[in-house]
Amino acid sequence: MSIPDKLINLFEYEGLASQQLSSMALDYYASGAWDEITLRDNREAFERWKLRPKMLVDVSKRNLSTTILGSSIDLPILIAPMAFHCLATPEGELATARAAAKLGTVMVLSTLSTKSIEEVAIASGQSKLAADSTRRNPLWFQLYVHRDRDLTKSLVERAYAAGFQALCLTVDAPMLGRRERDQRNQFVLPPGMELANLKNLADLEISHKPDESGLFHYFSEQLDPAITWKDLEWLQSLSPLPLIVKGILRGDDAIRAVEHGAKAIIVSNHGGRQLDGAIASIDALSEIVAAVGNQAEVLVDGGIRRGTDVLKALALGAKAVLLGRPILWGLAIGGEAGAQHVLELLRDELDLAMALSGCSNLQDIDPSLVVKL
Amino acid sequence: MSIPDKLINLFEYEGLASQQLSSMALDYYASGAWDEITLRDNREAFERWKLRPKMLVDVSKRNLSTTILGSSIDLPILIAPMAFHCLATPEGELATARAAAKLGTVMVLSTLSTKSIEEVAIASGQSKLAADSTRRNPLWFQLYVHRDRDLTKSLVERAYAAGFQALCLTVDAPMLGRRERDQRNQFVLPPGMELANLKNLADLEISHKPDESGLFHYFSEQLDPAITWKDLEWLQSLSPLPLIVKGILRGDDAIRAVEHGAKAIIVSNHGGRQLDGAIASIDALSEIVAAVGNQAEVLVDGGIRRGTDVLKALALGAKAVLLGRPILWGLAIGGEAGAQHVLELLRDELDLAMALSGCSNLQDIDPSLVVKL
Amino acid sequence: MSIPDKLINLFEYEGLASQQLSSMALDYYASGAWDEITLRDNREAFERWKLRPKMLVDVSKRNLSTTILGSSIDLPILIAPMAFHCLATPEGELATARAAAKLGTVMVLSTLSTKSIEEVAIASGQSKLAADSTRRNPLWFQLYVHRDRDLTKSLVERAYAAGFQALCLTVDAPMLGRRERDQRNQFVLPPGMELANLKNLADLEISHKPDESGLFHYFSEQLDPAITWKDLEWLQSLSPLPLIVKGILRGDDAIRAVEHGAKAIIVSNHGGRQLDGAIASIDALSEIVAAVGNQAEVLVDGGIRRGTDVLKALALGAKAVLLGRPILWGLAIGGEAGAQHVLELLRDELDLAMALSGCSNLQDIDPSLVVKL
Amino acid sequence: MSIPDKLINLFEYEGLASQQLSSMALDYYASGAWDEITLRDNREAFERWKLRPKMLVDVSKRNLSTTILGSSIDLPILIAPMAFHCLATPEGELATARAAAKLGTVMVLSTLSTKSIEEVAIASGQSKLAADSTRRNPLWFQLYVHRDRDLTKSLVERAYAAGFQALCLTVDAPMLGRRERDQRNQFVLPPGMELANLKNLADLEISHKPDESGLFHYFSEQLDPAITWKDLEWLQSLSPLPLIVKGILRGDDAIRAVEHGAKAIIVSNHGGRQLDGAIASIDALSEIVAAVGNQAEVLVDGGIRRGTDVLKALALGAKAVLLGRPILWGLAIGGEAGAQHVLELLRDELDLAMALSGCSNLQDIDPSLVVKL
Repeated sequence: MSIPDKLINLFEYEGLASQQLSSMALDYYASGAWDEITLRDNREAFERWKLRPKMLVDVSKRNLSTTILGSSIDLPILIAPMAFHCLATPEGELATARAAAKLGTVMVLSTLSTKSIEEVAIASGQSKLAADSTRRNPLWFQLYVHRDRDLTKSLVERAYAAGFQALCLTVDAPMLGRRERDQRNQFVLPPGMELANLKNLADLEISHKPDESGLFHYFSEQLDPAITWKDLEWLQSLSPLPLIVKGILRGDDAIRAVEHGAKAIIVSNHGGRQLDGAIASIDALSEIVAAVGNQAEVLVDGGIRRGTDVLKALALGAKAVLLGRPILWGLAIGGEAGAQHVLELLRDELDLAMALSGCSNLQDIDPSLVVKL
Repeated sequence: MSIPDKLINLFEYEGLASQQLSSMALDYYASGAWDEITLRDNREAFERWKLRPKMLVDVSKRNLSTTILGSSIDLPILIAPMAFHCLATPEGELATARAAAKLGTVMVLSTLSTKSIEEVAIASGQSKLAADSTRRNPLWFQLYVHRDRDLTKSLVERAYAAGFQALCLTVDAPMLGRRERDQRNQFVLPPGMELANLKNLADLEISHKPDESGLFHYFSEQLDPAITWKDLEWLQSLSPLPLIVKGILRGDDAIRAVEHGAKAIIVSNHGGRQLDGAIASIDALSEIVAAVGNQAEVLVDGGIRRGTDVLKALALGAKAVLLGRPILWGLAIGGEAGAQHVLELLRDELDLAMALSGCSNLQDIDPSLVVKL
Repeated sequence: MSIPDKLINLFEYEGLASQQLSSMALDYYASGAWDEITLRDNREAFERWKLRPKMLVDVSKRNLSTTILGSSIDLPILIAPMAFHCLATPEGELATARAAAKLGTVMVLSTLSTKSIEEVAIASGQSKLAADSTRRNPLWFQLYVHRDRDLTKSLVERAYAAGFQALCLTVDAPMLGRRERDQRNQFVLPPGMELANLKNLADLEISHKPDESGLFHYFSEQLDPAITWKDLEWLQSLSPLPLIVKGILRGDDAIRAVEHGAKAIIVSNHGGRQLDGAIASIDALSEIVAAVGNQAEVLVDGGIRRGTDVLKALALGAKAVLLGRPILWGLAIGGEAGAQHVLELLRDELDLAMALSGCSNLQDIDPSLVVKL
Repeated sequence: MSIPDKLINLFEYEGLASQQLSSMALDYYASGAWDEITLRDNREAFERWKLRPKMLVDVSKRNLSTTILGSSIDLPILIAPMAFHCLATPEGELATARAAAKLGTVMVLSTLSTKSIEEVAIASGQSKLAADSTRRNPLWFQLYVHRDRDLTKSLVERAYAAGFQALCLTVDAPMLGRRERDQRNQFVLPPGMELANLKNLADLEISHKPDESGLFHYFSEQLDPAITWKDLEWLQSLSPLPLIVKGILRGDDAIRAVEHGAKAIIVSNHGGRQLDGAIASIDALSEIVAAVGNQAEVLVDGGIRRGTDVLKALALGAKAVLLGRPILWGLAIGGEAGAQHVLELLRDELDLAMALSGCSNLQDIDPSLVVKL
């Protein structure tokens, strides 16, 4: 695979990937829950915020680097946890990890990856012994808490052992959201693909019911809808890894997360894939930033496609953003090189947007840059 | 008839039913008054309210049961009163009543039903002797006050005798709204169908004028546009049944209803079929909930098609919602089984929406779950 | 001509008339100024106001009659002044006057009519001797002030002599608005049609310039862009007729009109035909009603097509509304009978809208009936 | 070339020019940055402001003249700086300068012109010796600060020597915005065209990179992204010319500009070509007018296509507006005569809009004329 020369933005990646992926994979990646209202609103919300750029600032040198949970990264754009990268490219999460490493940013590996924790750590150049808090491409592990608590414990221990540097608990999926395209497709992983971290479980292909998404069935069978804030203490007892809570949309929940030990919060509606009608993540961000203050780092994902979207998120108080689907489009078009190019495009757009807003580094980005009319 | 396997939401029922119904029946069911502004706004208003879900609540067990007027029901979704179910399925209201009974919820039978009060009571397993306030599928009787007060009195007495447990007075139809599709169709009931509760009246087929909807003519001939709040006392004197007032859109009217003895209020614009341009029912709800406080139970109908719509209505203070047209689409596609499936789909969506919002029972649903941006 | 049986609302009249009129006549009637923003906004503004109907009021008898400037009329819907009715029907303004008389309402005759003041008075059954302030169909005369003040004086004297009961001065047209469709058409009156009140003037056909609307040229040649508030005193000195000022969009102007003797004010943007981008008339109404108080009667025109539009205007404080283009569509389809039917349709819609809102007469319509969300 | 007789507004010029220009030139002129959100919003924002016209003012004589920086001009519409007029017409900026002179208004010559400072001055009838502060068509010189400060200094000195009367520093382009159409086209100047003021530099045709707009490359190579407010003092030291700062979107930046000596501020987002998502210029205007008070003159550009747009801008406090792309469409259709006709059309629209708003001169235009609903 080689990256088409002429792709110049993330929408073009989306367009071309939509033609190349199987319809089952495309639907799985692209769809949102129910009527996809939140999926659309995540994008439209960005357009409702207007930029108020500052002029005549020396922007000859821009610096996009920052620190997240004490680790330096080269750009405030992380790779969001997403399942099943092998649907997009044969190397799956290995390609993604290498792209993240090249760009000097965090990849958040999904529990539901099609390459294992250990394989990804190696691909990323990460290992326990080599762990170096100053390196610029830490891996984080996204966790779903299984009904089988021993399995959950084992996943955390494996991630820690493999050199992952944080645990990212997804809290907005006690059950899986209804993505009707998957339901119609009776979504399953194709032959030869598996839940690489969970090989002892029945795979998706076997367990699905008729007229049902296999993943929906997996969630209701395997994942624990009973976990509560108290379980965060137990999770933190399993390893020294700092805890990130992903999927918060309210200030009071953010405060609760901090009180239970979270070091970072990801404002997210799961890309519009869980509760349709939920507030756009960029619209929820301010409330959470205000509630948390400096007690935790706040990140956001959902609908980010342009450098100006990143700029708006940072202006509203996010420390960084996470990029989801466009990474998959990059993988689909060009594997590792495609994912890398997608990140580079977005980084370069942010770089230019900062220059045009009078910001030479991320600390210059303040709330006065945005307004909702 | 058998329910197509692949219908997975209420919109798909609507789409398929639209192909199968006669155009006269479809137009009668689907249309709104005049320019259908309120018909559309009932739907669009739901989208303007955004959800703010709570996370990390134990939602492993959800309970959707509640009580309405002291009766327990299994889900906060009732069947709204609608005329002429036989246009959708030969068994008409009998099928609907059986579906309601299977789901454990209330059916509100219309005065203008095509099966009689007594037939429906039997189908529902309801009877005066067997009346049991703890049963989960009470029948309510929707009342239009006829100019002939003896006829009105007789309807109430028959409903009471047949075991109906409440009287639901529709107050937004002193005259019938102008549904122009019906007017163009010169809407009449097809041969063999009749107003089963009103057999002594000239039927719709006979009395209609040229260039007119037969139902419009019926209303102006038979129904009483002079009834006022004072008549509520008279209505309540006719039977021990509690009174529900349906069709309220203002807080002051809701207070008046309570003062005149109403035990419940249904916030409704008659599905957009009466006064076009009226406020969307979900937008009117808060004012009425605030006005009524705990003096009466407040329900709402109009535009509910998704579990998240139900969730929003409950968050804004409704005790339950009523479902209208989708029941008819269910009947048209699959008779009793179709109506049952429609209710099950909406119930399951509500169940999932609650889980994803951190609500394990209806009492957990509070106003903080919704916001209008 | 006979009225098609099946036309049931004003939009259908518009649709059919659009097919039957010459394109020059249709463009002249239908167009707005420049980009037609205000033309569209006049309609859309009505939809932004929502109705809050009252229930359980005795609406068995409705009364739509009111008084305007001391004259009783049968419905709060007047016929707005419009030029050139002969473009729609051979009998022109005579047909319109007869329709107004049948309905018991006011016709406002345009200075630019294609039938003369005297002919219209006769058709209307109006004459100085027969003048009766209690009759239900007074005629008003719409005035453009010509540079030739003697001509202007003569028009007023002729109107008074012919039994017209008020003078309606259009103040929003010191120059004619740019209606680009007319400009492209090089609009002129067809052979055989003339400015019936102004026969001594060069007619439109002769005086127009290339690439120009003849009417635009007429205005710049003949009408006086220098008139000011002070001229209202002079106008009132010409006859005992009460003065109405048409074309006000601001509260301060409304107060000025009252101070200079106006007995009524018509809130209007000339149907979107003068200053494009001007505020929708229904959105300007409240400010003017508040400013004027009970010192003058306030009327409104612009975009009224449904009975609910009339209801909203009255709820916002208008004493009555004026109907424009739909009268022309009625004339085009059915001459006098068409115009009469259009008025009847709108009257009946208002009648029903009042019943459904709990209003049995116009005094029951109050500001609580409307809300902008 | 002759101007088509029937073009009656600026949109028609745009439509016809779009058919006649090469696609590379059209794309260069028409495009905005990234998703062109600001490009569209510049237009849509005007429609959100509604006009509140005043009536019965003597508008028989209108006067559109004003003064800018002490020079009298005949209309409050200047020609915005734009690069490469030769792409539209062989005479390029000479044609534009002659059109500006005929209309009696300012032309702002771009640093990136295809005719030189000196040639344009001659065409305009401008020369140092002939300089006359009372003449009605001053030339201003738009400046980009090059990394080569001597080159910059030389440009200023040449403009001053040639009789230009002001220096207009563009501050919103430390780097060039991403116009993706240009990027796809690999935009370069066609053979025979050159940067007439910068002949010693490598021209655009030579220096561009593959997959890149030549202009984007030029900016990053040649222009100085390090200039700050302090450099304004240096710029003003190079000549006695008054300084205008173009590209301000915030009140605090406007105050800074005044503090550093700017005599006028142009509120602008560079026609949506720099930071996509930036606030519409008309929406930013009020804040800047309020911040600056009478310490500097405030002008605005972006999206002006109608006389009513000019009227709204003046009502919101602008002293004048600048017209951009439509001048290019005029040049493309009719060279000098086309540009002249475009200006005449807009002037005549403003003239009529003023008459219809009760304004006989620019001083009559006040903030009460506009409202945002």
